[in-house]
Amino acid sequence: MTTLQNDCFIRALLRQPVDRAPVWMMRQAGRYLPEYRKVRGQAGNFLNLCMNPELACEVTMQPLERFRLDAAILFSDILTIPDAMGLGLYFSEGEGPKFERPIRSPKDIANLPVPDPELSLSYVTDAVRLIRKTLDGRVPLIGFSGSPWTLATYMVEGGSSKTFGKVKGLMYNDPEQMHLLLEKIADSVILYLNAQIAAGAQAVMLFDTWGGVLTPEDYQTFSLRYAQRIREGLNLNHEGQKIPAVLFTKGGGQWLEAMAETGYDALGLDWTTNIGSARQRVGDRVALQGNLDPATLYAKPEIIQRQVKYTLEQYGSASSGHVFNLGHGITPDVPPEHAEAMIEAVHKYSPAYYSGS
Amino acid sequence: MTTLQNDCFIRALLRQPVDRAPVWMMRQAGRYLPEYRKVRGQAGNFLNLCMNPELACEVTMQPLERFRLDAAILFSDILTIPDAMGLGLYFSEGEGPKFERPIRSPKDIANLPVPDPELSLSYVTDAVRLIRKTLDGRVPLIGFSGSPWTLATYMVEGGSSKTFGKVKGLMYNDPEQMHLLLEKIADSVILYLNAQIAAGAQAVMLFDTWGGVLTPEDYQTFSLRYAQRIREGLNLNHEGQKIPAVLFTKGGGQWLEAMAETGYDALGLDWTTNIGSARQRVGDRVALQGNLDPATLYAKPEIIQRQVKYTLEQYGSASSGHVFNLGHGITPDVPPEHAEAMIEAVHKYSPAYYSGS
Repeated sequence: MTTLQNDCFIRALLRQPVDRAPVWMMRQAGRYLPEYRKVRGQAGNFLNLCMNPELACEVTMQPLERFRLDAAILFSDILTIPDAMGLGLYFSEGEGPKFERPIRSPKDIANLPVPDPELSLSYVTDAVRLIRKTLDGRVPLIGFSGSPWTLATYMVEGGSSKTFGKVKGLMYNDPEQMHLLLEKIADSVILYLNAQIAAGAQAVMLFDTWGGVLTPEDYQTFSLRYAQRIREGLNLNHEGQKIPAVLFTKGGGQWLEAMAETGYDALGLDWTTNIGSARQRVGDRVALQGNLDPATLYAKPEIIQRQVKYTLEQYGSASSGHVFNLGHGITPDVPPEHAEAMIEAVHKYSPAYYSGS
Repeated sequence: MTTLQNDCFIRALLRQPVDRAPVWMMRQAGRYLPEYRKVRGQAGNFLNLCMNPELACEVTMQPLERFRLDAAILFSDILTIPDAMGLGLYFSEGEGPKFERPIRSPKDIANLPVPDPELSLSYVTDAVRLIRKTLDGRVPLIGFSGSPWTLATYMVEGGSSKTFGKVKGLMYNDPEQMHLLLEKIADSVILYLNAQIAAGAQAVMLFDTWGGVLTPEDYQTFSLRYAQRIREGLNLNHEGQKIPAVLFTKGGGQWLEAMAETGYDALGLDWTTNIGSARQRVGDRVALQGNLDPATLYAKPEIIQRQVKYTLEQYGSASSGHVFNLGHGITPDVPPEHAEAMIEAVHKYSPAYYSGS
């Protein structure tokens, strides 16, 4: 294996000394980049792009050519697992992801397979191998998956939802079936992330995009419990390297203490929590990744710089433990120069907070 | 003025002794009721319904005919103020509210009038007077307004938004203009709520639907500050009666302590916070209104009862201070019998927690 030329992202997640905050952006390979839109146009649609390892590799690399980023993230979608389970993922213009065959009955749950990633998700592991080869040790590659709860919302609703009526109806009326479904998804996620690690992912992240729509009790029972199960099933030592694992629940700011107990190395933080308060609450149990409001990137570059500085200042002096990121994915209509202003501001201002290291 | 036959809602908000938790539902007059859909059909569209005092009164009364509710809430929309400011509110099918003339420049902000409610919002005060007359003291009537921040999001975005890019762009790039806009809206809300009180509203509620999309710092500066300004401008003593004021920020669970310092009598609570923890955090400074997950109403009646019991148990023993409600509005596809199961469960189970009073 190639030695990493820049390992500050991995070190910060593992809370090993670094001399500045590493930085990357959720959805950094995405529609805000004209070069991405060009490749997506060639691919015909989003799913073709995800399922073609060469194109997925190409768009994964694009933001690294533009910006001084400290990590690459696999270009893919969180709904690859349900698609591999046979639900028939498709994207209808302007309406987001949909499934042709959503979960409607206990029989549907009983019949769901736990996909073997090297068979039915080989386009993902192939992409991981190709991206690793292309990166050639420049920065680490992050693999990821949606969380069981988040995947279940799409699988039961048949797509996006505002009310989560179907999936919560199942959860409240038939918790046993809901747990069967979540177990199957969790087992699939474990195989999937371990396959990404075996293929070369150097860190993994679990995206619990919809954990924040639950009550505190239901969050623990139907989301966090499965994040924990996944953590326990992950092979986080690969070829002598420790693979950091990050857990991100959007809207999970009230539950950081519980999240910090699950054994993940780091927590992703959205922008509704002050990162300094979050640091106090989780102590040295986990690193933190975040948490600039993605909408800050609609502001002028000097305002973006000021907000980056504020976030760093709130995290405070450190020898490690902070990965700078947005609090959620970068939005499609942000000018790339604004992303650059953020990234450069992290490079410029963060070393001052690490002078003690 | 007629004496109230049932004042337990008012008493619970003012933390005066009651013998059970009062109950009402946000959006209790709404699409989940077939009789509402009938009147809306007659009105032609939603705005006509809001702007016709007789029809607004009719739908306000509908849920009271079906259920044992302890309060009525004025049937109206949060966007009546910006419409009265001249922005041209309309509803396009399936896309929610829109404005014909959204705020685009400092000139637009400078030109915004502060509407005199008795002139340009008389359809609202007329509805309040008619509903009070129709209620004839049965239960109290709640008046309401959107919060300045929430109204500003629609006024600047021109409608609903996922990213809040335009309004946050304005907030970050030109906070001075943002404050001018929020001040103007706050002054309008004060006049509007005071006019509702003068017309007969016996409690008022400020809906900060989008406060939860802000950072903690921006929430304080751009939302809570104006909620406080409004609180200070309200005439909460009317004809010898104290008018309780409720502040609700959806997604505000992390900021309850700050919200409890603003002088509102009660805080609305969404379902992402445990109401027992919330009670500990706010102490006896405010009453709490909430907080059953609205999606609970997709479950079977026996599950709804169990969840109501759980919420009451979490709030715990009390002599007052809890108004039972959903954590957000009831959703259009809920069977009315499920709403009834919730309301009846509050009547059945809550007195046990008030035995000490």
